[in-house]
Amino acid sequence: MLNPPKQVPEQVTEALRQAESVVIVSHVFPDADAIGSQLALGNILESQGKRVFYYCQEFALSLHEFIPGSKQLSNKLPDISQFDVGIAVDCGDRYRLGEQMDTLLQIHPFIVIDHHAGHKEFGDIRWVEAGRSSSAEMIFDLAQALDAEISYRAAFCLYTAIVSDTGSFKYESTTAYTLQVAGHLLKLGIKPSEVAGKLFDNYTVNRLRLLEKVLGSLKLYFEDQIAVIKATNEMFEATGALREDTEEFINLPRALRSVKVAAFLKETLEGYIKVSLRAKGECDVSLVAMQFGGGGHRNAAGFRIKDKTLGEVSEDLLQEIKRRL
Amino acid sequence: MLNPPKQVPEQVTEALRQAESVVIVSHVFPDADAIGSQLALGNILESQGKRVFYYCQEFALSLHEFIPGSKQLSNKLPDISQFDVGIAVDCGDRYRLGEQMDTLLQIHPFIVIDHHAGHKEFGDIRWVEAGRSSSAEMIFDLAQALDAEISYRAAFCLYTAIVSDTGSFKYESTTAYTLQVAGHLLKLGIKPSEVAGKLFDNYTVNRLRLLEKVLGSLKLYFEDQIAVIKATNEMFEATGALREDTEEFINLPRALRSVKVAAFLKETLEGYIKVSLRAKGECDVSLVAMQFGGGGHRNAAGFRIKDKTLGEVSEDLLQEIKRRL
Repeated sequence: MLNPPKQVPEQVTEALRQAESVVIVSHVFPDADAIGSQLALGNILESQGKRVFYYCQEFALSLHEFIPGSKQLSNKLPDISQFDVGIAVDCGDRYRLGEQMDTLLQIHPFIVIDHHAGHKEFGDIRWVEAGRSSSAEMIFDLAQALDAEISYRAAFCLYTAIVSDTGSFKYESTTAYTLQVAGHLLKLGIKPSEVAGKLFDNYTVNRLRLLEKVLGSLKLYFEDQIAVIKATNEMFEATGALREDTEEFINLPRALRSVKVAAFLKETLEGYIKVSLRAKGECDVSLVAMQFGGGGHRNAAGFRIKDKTLGEVSEDLLQEIKRRL
Repeated sequence: MLNPPKQVPEQVTEALRQAESVVIVSHVFPDADAIGSQLALGNILESQGKRVFYYCQEFALSLHEFIPGSKQLSNKLPDISQFDVGIAVDCGDRYRLGEQMDTLLQIHPFIVIDHHAGHKEFGDIRWVEAGRSSSAEMIFDLAQALDAEISYRAAFCLYTAIVSDTGSFKYESTTAYTLQVAGHLLKLGIKPSEVAGKLFDNYTVNRLRLLEKVLGSLKLYFEDQIAVIKATNEMFEATGALREDTEEFINLPRALRSVKVAAFLKETLEGYIKVSLRAKGECDVSLVAMQFGGGGHRNAAGFRIKDKTLGEVSEDLLQEIKRRL
């Protein structure tokens, strides 16, 4: 047993103990923390004899199919009358539940488990800790609070989620407790190099060719404090790389010594410009993203925009970032 | 107190308890584990009233100057009669001590603390554990065995060393105990994002421009199982990047899904071709490196060679790797 920084609220464990059939929801376009937390929690509840439905409106399975249980994810919400508890994991606000938001929130009690800093309250039972590295770290605590054994499969989901959401224990959110939890998961048989390999060493040659081109687009502004890289339709066509192949690219301009904010602008197949933002210093990029209808964390945020060119978005974005540096 | 996988040999603690004046040596061209372990051990011994001299024949301070105490490193070995104990940390064989090897090994007792798999025994008191993530993990145990308090400064050195030698807890060598030790160091005040920032987010723009060119050199062989990248004199001149700026570059071709062995060939200012090798599968690249007079770990090794062209070295190397795939 590890001793968490805060105890799991009793309302959460109580509601889950009484539940027989639950639906667990992760946010639209889920990252590995969302999916890993969702699947681990489901596995834990199933081990306690509950029926679990795994719902997510929109997900790119190719990136996360190595996470055990990911094939159980469904984007079709069945009749909700069969569920006596709803749970959202890793959702910073109700809109992240997707288009079925209103239907889902008719399930009572609806439990919300999240670690996002700018979390906007929703649901009936709220367990939100912005100081946590990941939602998965909280699910680990929940397993302990429920006296549930963590299976190898749940451990794999949790470890993957924690590694993904902390950039392999590099981000500010990593605490001594995070490392304790991760250490405990290794004792359950997880191999760190296997997880890291699946999460990070997953490049295709096309992806590396795309990276070369994206690096060629690097521009620096405002005494080299802002770095901007771009991935255009043309680059995707020339290299044969996929849209999801750009994961992690932004960490390279972010790694520049002088850079306080890095931005990555990508043309999507649906005609959007998708923008990812990363900050290292004082600038809160979630505020920048909000100006454009997006959101996220202090150090990592994003948004997407239509009917503008890459150049226009870049120009507007630079103004907004400069204001906040 | 943490419970290490193996106890520190009593001979080591005994010799150190009795010592008054020690010289600690790290290997030529030290990495962050070598320097971090050396400086942490020295700080620990100084806190116990010993006099410590920090020797290393050749080091590139610019990369590691953020490691506290690194300015104490000296490449001039004084009269050895003043030392009653010699210690080598992170040295896989005696030749890694550098040109003063014979002089250094006249100090008795000479303690050797190392975690390299292909370690070749030398010195009087040998504490070698190939299963450890880093030499720093062993120095942590040594501090515990000596009942020494670990200062913030020593903790910073140790955490940096562990993170560096495990690729931020991604490599196979990372164990539950490694994460426990790292968690303990965080409790002493270390900020993971600060260490990661210093170790990894330390790119200059020139360095990123060089990366673009190096990625442009990517070639794949043998059903895409071998990836080779190159950094030529011309690339360094065109970008203004430094020779040490190539750190971590090899992890990109290594991250290719199909790749079992990645090689990085670099022209040095002294007219050598320096070769770094990384393996993911069954191939033991330390054996490949040995064929060319180098060495290292199973998954990470290297060598350097003179009087050959990049093309010639690449050709010979490919033959040697193919033999072992």
